[in-house]
Amino acid sequence: MSFAKLDELGHRLEALEHALSILGADEATHMAVGGGEKRAEAMSQLAGMYHAQATAPEIADWIEAAKAEALDTDQTLALGEFERNYVNATCLPTEFVQRRTAATMRSEQLWRDLRAKGDWDSFLPALEGVVALVREEAALRADATGLAPYDALMDQYDPGNRTAEIDGVFADLKGFLKDFLPTALAVQEQRLAQRPRKSLNAPYPIEKQRELGLAAMRATGFDFTHGSLAVSHHPFCGGVPTDVRMTTRYRTDEFLTSLMGVLHETGHALYEQGLPKEWSHWPLGKARGMGMHESQSLFVEMQIARSGDFWEFMLPLIHQHLGETAIPGWDIPDILSEVNFIERGYIRVDADEITYPLHIILRYELEQDLVAGKLEASQIPEAWDAKMTEYLGISTINDPKDGPMQDVHWPGGAFGYFPSYTLGAMIAAQLGSAMAKDIPDMGAQMRQGDFTAINQWRADKVWSQASRYSTPDLITRATGEPLNADHFKAHLKRRYGA
Amino acid sequence: MSFAKLDELGHRLEALEHALSILGADEATHMAVGGGEKRAEAMSQLAGMYHAQATAPEIADWIEAAKAEALDTDQTLALGEFERNYVNATCLPTEFVQRRTAATMRSEQLWRDLRAKGDWDSFLPALEGVVALVREEAALRADATGLAPYDALMDQYDPGNRTAEIDGVFADLKGFLKDFLPTALAVQEQRLAQRPRKSLNAPYPIEKQRELGLAAMRATGFDFTHGSLAVSHHPFCGGVPTDVRMTTRYRTDEFLTSLMGVLHETGHALYEQGLPKEWSHWPLGKARGMGMHESQSLFVEMQIARSGDFWEFMLPLIHQHLGETAIPGWDIPDILSEVNFIERGYIRVDADEITYPLHIILRYELEQDLVAGKLEASQIPEAWDAKMTEYLGISTINDPKDGPMQDVHWPGGAFGYFPSYTLGAMIAAQLGSAMAKDIPDMGAQMRQGDFTAINQWRADKVWSQASRYSTPDLITRATGEPLNADHFKAHLKRRYGA
Repeated sequence: MSFAKLDELGHRLEALEHALSILGADEATHMAVGGGEKRAEAMSQLAGMYHAQATAPEIADWIEAAKAEALDTDQTLALGEFERNYVNATCLPTEFVQRRTAATMRSEQLWRDLRAKGDWDSFLPALEGVVALVREEAALRADATGLAPYDALMDQYDPGNRTAEIDGVFADLKGFLKDFLPTALAVQEQRLAQRPRKSLNAPYPIEKQRELGLAAMRATGFDFTHGSLAVSHHPFCGGVPTDVRMTTRYRTDEFLTSLMGVLHETGHALYEQGLPKEWSHWPLGKARGMGMHESQSLFVEMQIARSGDFWEFMLPLIHQHLGETAIPGWDIPDILSEVNFIERGYIRVDADEITYPLHIILRYELEQDLVAGKLEASQIPEAWDAKMTEYLGISTINDPKDGPMQDVHWPGGAFGYFPSYTLGAMIAAQLGSAMAKDIPDMGAQMRQGDFTAINQWRADKVWSQASRYSTPDLITRATGEPLNADHFKAHLKRRYGA
Repeated sequence: MSFAKLDELGHRLEALEHALSILGADEATHMAVGGGEKRAEAMSQLAGMYHAQATAPEIADWIEAAKAEALDTDQTLALGEFERNYVNATCLPTEFVQRRTAATMRSEQLWRDLRAKGDWDSFLPALEGVVALVREEAALRADATGLAPYDALMDQYDPGNRTAEIDGVFADLKGFLKDFLPTALAVQEQRLAQRPRKSLNAPYPIEKQRELGLAAMRATGFDFTHGSLAVSHHPFCGGVPTDVRMTTRYRTDEFLTSLMGVLHETGHALYEQGLPKEWSHWPLGKARGMGMHESQSLFVEMQIARSGDFWEFMLPLIHQHLGETAIPGWDIPDILSEVNFIERGYIRVDADEITYPLHIILRYELEQDLVAGKLEASQIPEAWDAKMTEYLGISTINDPKDGPMQDVHWPGGAFGYFPSYTLGAMIAAQLGSAMAKDIPDMGAQMRQGDFTAINQWRADKVWSQASRYSTPDLITRATGEPLNADHFKAHLKRRYGA
């Protein structure tokens, strides 16, 4: 039976993924500094074995033969995802993959060096090479999938996402945000005039911050029988669903960055821990995609952890773990001012809830034009500056370091990924609206630190669904309506409006 | 070129070994408790891939073809080890391996249950099954290697070890120990009468013990750029040579057990860290075998860390890390009395330097008879008791739990492994004698905590040699004479004699 062969292949690929995930997390958390070279060699070999096994020509025959077999609903859906993964893994010729890998590795290395210097001119030739390869890749993926070139790129990260839908949603959101940002800034100014920012009472010992983070994870539903928290330079959520490896980093002069980071990663972790265990070796059993994954982290971070209701529960935990005088005189509005502070800035990763989507939409618009050949790499600085000026009112024309050189995505050849971040924020808000209808006392539950019903709702609607549906279908099934910007707009108005 | 194919195979196998080693260490140190089932599944799949790749039929052709190629000395030696490994990996038919795996897994599970109850009678049928399989395996290995059956089993753990040599060495040692034990016990009694055992000043905080252990590791040469120390229930030295994962466990009522354990594992770690890096993907680049590995841990534990010279250096570190009153009134002779305490006991793993080899020789004699068919499993309790009574003067006839049921080796089908422990102790002593000739002021260096010359000698003679020579040849090259019991006997007489 051919489906059984795919099932058995799934077990082999899961084992290699398991090894790569744990080795990757271990590298960032527990590896001795001198172990890196051999670790890289081992992981490269394992990735090669994964690729060879995942792209074996006989898999195409198994998939075709399995279509004629008597399969139940789950198996039929699983077969679809096996096929989608196989097409994605095999649609690029080996010769192209080698060329692309060499070019993007070189471009990333150059970027690490030249970004620090803000040297756009020296970097441009490498980026031009990457853009040419991305156009080639988009055409190859379009051929294999029957999608438009940019859609074919996006489809890797969020299956089913199409510019036909997203263009409209983003245009709506952009129009709103451009108007809303000055309003929200004015409201903030007024609020801060009435209630100035209060000072912290540092230092905050790392061991106490760790206990606080663990308490926040536990409260919001992290399952410590299937995961742990460690320290790494760049926080991440890795590992495998049965053993999620979450990390954070600490500074002793303040604790909110780490705590908010822990809550963000907890959202990712809950998704992984909530995936259906019986399909863990099928592509069907994996999290749906990057946008949906980001929606789960942003749900915890933005919908829950930056709300007044949550802080009714959280503030006593701060006192319990960091001491009664840890934030002297702070009340909930002070914390909300702090964690929901907004400002116009150059850097995407430092941006707040209102400005972040504008950074994303700028990139989304530019990369569509780059893929379509309507924009050349050499024209990026001017185009970037024009949009920054229009959307955020700040110019980057003389500062490529904090302008188009700030992200690793393009130097690394990852086009079509950026929209996922803002889709995640919108999906989180849309899930929040739908949940509020089903759980009318959601706010009261958060104030009690009771996330049982909230998590059960997400488990039913999202986590347990894994990859049964495309991203748009999963959104519609979970929330009762297609993706739209209304709920995110309403959320921002509630939080940042007058 | 066929050697190049073997070289490339070596890289693939090294990557899988790397993953299995790190995943194994991670499982014991950092894995979430609920991650075990998927971890086991992943490791079993990876081990299957390893086996499939290591036993591929074309490897036999590559080995034959490589013999005709122009190879340098290292490559020629490497080819020999590739062939030895291939023969060992392929000499058992798959059908047999499956039968054996099923039987030993079941026998080990039964043993875990029945050992606690001391229920020999219920366990016997399973052990009889294992003994039958071990006889079959010994015959298969003998066929493939041209060795005698028990030699073929031993050869897996220590290539080149033969009963023809070891029988005589063990007989010599046994004769000595049977006489020496009562003498040494009398000497100890007299010493303790003059200087009674002193009391500890517990508790010893874990964090302070950890710092002490790290200081001891650092002093004796552990390279922290290529390794680390963690906590696990059963201490081990795992990981890979570029990232050695050492563990210990702590109790707060005393600290010497953990410290001595750390020093023992440091000996293993130094061997791994000292292996030649350029051959790490060849069997030739691996540590020679179990006996030689144990000689390196016992060199640090027994030759160095239980000596008065070492404690001249170590005692101040105890005070520094655990406090001036950590061991109130203890001087070096008090510590030596404590760490070199000897007694007649039932349990091998709890035995001291003098009685341990008697436990081993007993097992070595019995398992030779079991493999040869001169002894049946049902006769073990009486044979065990007779030897315990003769060698150690204590009877186990009514206590199978602390007699023949105490070790996992036989239930797990590992026959031919036990001698490695005592060979290790003898090799360590023989290396110590040879080293003392080359480094006359070795004792003074230890008193200074200077292990540079000591480690360089071991690096030259043992670590850097990896698997270039058989175990007996490596011993002869390192020490100038074949393995013999004289140095170990002299060592015991110096330490425990009148």
